[in-house]
Amino acid sequence: MGRTLTYPKRSSNTVNRYKHRATYDLRAIHSIINSSQVLHVSFSPGPSDPFPTILPMIGQVGSFDYPSSGIDEPLECYLHGYVSSRIMNLARNSEGEGLPICVAASKIDGLVLSLTPNSHSYNYRSAVLHGYANLVTNEEEKLWAMKLITNSVLEDRWDHSRVPPDKAEMSSTTILKVTVVDGSGKIRDGSSSDEAKDKNNDAVTGSVWTGVVPVWETFGEPVPSPENIVAEVPEYISTFVAHKNSENRAVAENAITVQLPPEEQH
Amino acid sequence: MGRTLTYPKRSSNTVNRYKHRATYDLRAIHSIINSSQVLHVSFSPGPSDPFPTILPMIGQVGSFDYPSSGIDEPLECYLHGYVSSRIMNLARNSEGEGLPICVAASKIDGLVLSLTPNSHSYNYRSAVLHGYANLVTNEEEKLWAMKLITNSVLEDRWDHSRVPPDKAEMSSTTILKVTVVDGSGKIRDGSSSDEAKDKNNDAVTGSVWTGVVPVWETFGEPVPSPENIVAEVPEYISTFVAHKNSENRAVAENAITVQLPPEEQH
Repeated sequence: MGRTLTYPKRSSNTVNRYKHRATYDLRAIHSIINSSQVLHVSFSPGPSDPFPTILPMIGQVGSFDYPSSGIDEPLECYLHGYVSSRIMNLARNSEGEGLPICVAASKIDGLVLSLTPNSHSYNYRSAVLHGYANLVTNEEEKLWAMKLITNSVLEDRWDHSRVPPDKAEMSSTTILKVTVVDGSGKIRDGSSSDEAKDKNNDAVTGSVWTGVVPVWETFGEPVPSPENIVAEVPEYISTFVAHKNSENRAVAENAITVQLPPEEQH
Repeated sequence: MGRTLTYPKRSSNTVNRYKHRATYDLRAIHSIINSSQVLHVSFSPGPSDPFPTILPMIGQVGSFDYPSSGIDEPLECYLHGYVSSRIMNLARNSEGEGLPICVAASKIDGLVLSLTPNSHSYNYRSAVLHGYANLVTNEEEKLWAMKLITNSVLEDRWDHSRVPPDKAEMSSTTILKVTVVDGSGKIRDGSSSDEAKDKNNDAVTGSVWTGVVPVWETFGEPVPSPENIVAEVPEYISTFVAHKNSENRAVAENAITVQLPPEEQH
């Protein structure tokens, strides 16, 4: 129990809309990042281009220096990419603290269907981190991050594949380490909610179905490649699939029955 | 089949890695955007903040001026948000062509498990648009976009809820219209693939299972709100759920059996 670590509120990460849904709690924010299959990473390509851009990347938060750190403690964000990609070149050539980037993760847990379109919403969990990205140059840290990220795709996959990576593989892969400056999260759960003007209108309540359609990510039956010669799907894979399916479903279904605070609107 | 419209290649949207997976085709890019429940939208908060930021938003591409436009024709991107949110204030106060933003959508279709961590991948579809965002001020266009976006969450929901929005609802909602400057997409499908050095290593192929675990979004049984008094889940909802579940599953499973071109690596 004890202390709860939170990210500092700066103008760039302070949530203004539906403040009661906002969180600056490290555990909540880091958990959303680490349970996301894909992260959206934004950066500015440079002064000649007015548009920020977004790359989908795979990544995880963790601590190489303090590997026993909990998910609720200060962590760095590690992102996996190809050596010559634009974001890696920008980070390689960045001056000062590193390349300023934003890392975002969002998961939809349900369609929230209210009486009016305006009160419609999603049950969701979203998180954003801002920080400075630099290339990992320490080979031991790079290997550690590659294992962390591979195992985030499928638990224990690293040790069940051909490792360690050889020299060519190590040099074609780049890991970005993001020193996090701030972060924020937003979580919406519960059922639908509506305003009195509609709740007291019998013609409306009598004709519009309200509630939530839960949504979750399902993993299907593993399909062997044409070249696979291992007879059975290994247990660590089938266990992962079964575990994730029941966990994901439970998260989406449980989100609906959460008790909303009285100030909750939609 | 006639012409295929493509976005121009500029440095900001040109895909350098795995070029054979890149697409500039309007149909492919627009389809990925419109089938995504959530879009990640990036913008720069201003000169005093070094970090770009990302907001999860709901949106769709479409054409108000030419409503019969096909998905493969030039379209605008409409994003839904709250009137006083930061992105809306920035767009409201932007000068010149509008607020430069990036809109991204990514969907994971499968975990691609190869012999080595380096050859691991996802089957996925991702798309990015760059463009200038401005607030929609034409009330008719705004209402059209609100309907388009609501129906993207659940087909036909608009006409099955209390519409039209009243004056307060219209003024609390803001719609951003993005004039698209360029776009790109990336699609990875097929099974796992590996390099000869591992494929020819019997110890490796004999011990590492390779293939794809398909992944898709599942919609569960609709859960009525405590206040709902409509006895049955309406057919347009149950049909939507059943249709989406079989469609999403088919997309993920069919992606695996696509024939990869010979130059395909991992």
